[in-house]
Amino acid sequence: MRIIYWSIIGFIYILQVNGDLFTSIADLQRLLVVEKNIPELINSYIATENDRLAELKNFVVKYKDNNDDLHKNMNVVTNPINAFRMIKRLTNAWKELEEKMRNDHAEEFINNVTNSDMNVFPKDEDLAGAAIGILRLQDTYRLDTHELANGYVRENKISRPLSAHDCFEIGRMAYNVEDYYHTLLWMGEALERIKKEDPATAAESDILEYYAFALYKQDNVKRALLATERLNEIHPTHSRAKGNIKWYEDQLAAEGVKRSEFRK
Amino acid sequence: MRIIYWSIIGFIYILQVNGDLFTSIADLQRLLVVEKNIPELINSYIATENDRLAELKNFVVKYKDNNDDLHKNMNVVTNPINAFRMIKRLTNAWKELEEKMRNDHAEEFINNVTNSDMNVFPKDEDLAGAAIGILRLQDTYRLDTHELANGYVRENKISRPLSAHDCFEIGRMAYNVEDYYHTLLWMGEALERIKKEDPATAAESDILEYYAFALYKQDNVKRALLATERLNEIHPTHSRAKGNIKWYEDQLAAEGVKRSEFRK
Repeated sequence: MRIIYWSIIGFIYILQVNGDLFTSIADLQRLLVVEKNIPELINSYIATENDRLAELKNFVVKYKDNNDDLHKNMNVVTNPINAFRMIKRLTNAWKELEEKMRNDHAEEFINNVTNSDMNVFPKDEDLAGAAIGILRLQDTYRLDTHELANGYVRENKISRPLSAHDCFEIGRMAYNVEDYYHTLLWMGEALERIKKEDPATAAESDILEYYAFALYKQDNVKRALLATERLNEIHPTHSRAKGNIKWYEDQLAAEGVKRSEFRK
Repeated sequence: MRIIYWSIIGFIYILQVNGDLFTSIADLQRLLVVEKNIPELINSYIATENDRLAELKNFVVKYKDNNDDLHKNMNVVTNPINAFRMIKRLTNAWKELEEKMRNDHAEEFINNVTNSDMNVFPKDEDLAGAAIGILRLQDTYRLDTHELANGYVRENKISRPLSAHDCFEIGRMAYNVEDYYHTLLWMGEALERIKKEDPATAAESDILEYYAFALYKQDNVKRALLATERLNEIHPTHSRAKGNIKWYEDQLAAEGVKRSEFRK
C-alpha cells in the first residue's frame, strides 16, 4: 500500500499547485455535501409541487361547488344576467388556472441551488479537471490505461472498474485540450469495453469519431481511414463520415501512398 | 312570465344583430361545454404533473442505489478515479434534475386550451359583451338598477342577486365604452352592496374612483369632489386622490362656485 499512499499524496500535490484547473480537497469536501443533499433537495421540490397541485385540486372542488346551484341549460344561460355571471366566472377561472399552472417552482429551486455556496454542483470544467488529474497520475507513474481503467494502480486495486462511458469521457476531455496521445489511449480503451458491456454505456460511433481524428493527429492516417470506414459501416447516414474518408484518402495520396496500399 | 319570455327573446335579438360584440347563442353553447370540461382539464394536468414528480422520485431511488457501494469519506474521493466518477455523476445528476424540473407541462396545457376550438375560455371582450347586453336590456325595458341587481325583471325573479363585484364589473365595462350614465348607476349600486357584504366582494376605493370620474363626466363636480374626498379618507396614500381633489376644486372655482359652496 505504500506506493498507493504516495501516489495519492502525489496526486493531491498536483491538485494543489494547479488549483485553477484541478479539483482541490476543499472542492471534493464540498461535493460530498452536495451529493448528500440531493435526495433532500429533490424531496423538497416534490413537496412544493405537491402543494401546488393540491391547490389545483381544491380549485376543481371549489369550481364544482360554485356551479351546483346553476342549472345548466340554454334557457338559463341565455338570461343575460346568468350569461354575464357565467362569462365572468369562466374569465376569472382561466386567469386563476393559468397562473396556478405557470407558477411552478423549478426556476426558484434551480436558482437556489445555483446561487448557494454549499449546493454548487460541479460543472463540465470540474469534470475536465478531474479527468486531467487522472491523465497526470497516469503519466507520473507510467500507468497502463487498461489497468488503470480496471481500477488498478501498480497491482493495487484503488477503485471499481471504469465503464466504457467513463473512458470515453476521459478521452473526450483529453481531446478538448488537444492531448491526442491520451485521447487515443482512452478512446481505444472505450472501444474495447463496449464489446463487453450489455447494454453498452457509450455509442461506438461517438467513440470512433474521436478515435479516428486522434489517430490522424498522431500521424496514423491509414488507421484513421479504417476507423472512419468502420464508423460509416455502422452509421451510413453519419453527417461527416463519407467526407472524412475522402479527406483521409486524399491525405494518403498526397503522401505518395498507392491506392492499393491505403488499407494495409 | 310572458314579459320575461319576450325580454329574453328581445335580448337574443339584440345579441344576434350585434354579433361582433355581444355573446351569441352559439358562444353560450360553446361556453357551457368549456365549463363542463374544466374539472377534466385540471385533472388531466394534475395527472401529467404527478407522472413527472414520480420520475423525480425514481431519480432519488436510482441515485441512492448508484452510490450505496461507494463509501463516502475523503480517503475514497481523493483517489483520482473516484473523484472523477463522483464529479461525472454529479454533473449528470444536475443536468437531469434541471431538465426534469423545467419540463413541466403548463405551457403545453395552456397552448392546447388556447388553440382548441371547443376549449376556448371567454376573454375580457366577451365579458364586456355580456355586461353591455345587460345595459341594453335595462334601457329597452327601462329597468331599475337595484331591482335588476337583485335578479328581478318587472317583479319576476330571473336570477340570484348580483354581488357588489358583479355590479362593479358591469360598471367598469360601461366606463370602458365611455358610457358614464350606466357607470354611475352600477358603481352606485356596487357602493350600496358592499355595505351589506361581509367580506365585501369589491374594494370601496376601487369603486369610488370610477364613481367620482363618472359623476364629473355627468357634470356633477360637487359630488365627484365628495366621492374623491371619501376615497382620500379611506386610502390616504392613493396615488391620484389628492391631485383629483385639487383638480375638481379648480373646476368648481372656474365655474364661479365659491369655495364655501364646494361641498354643499
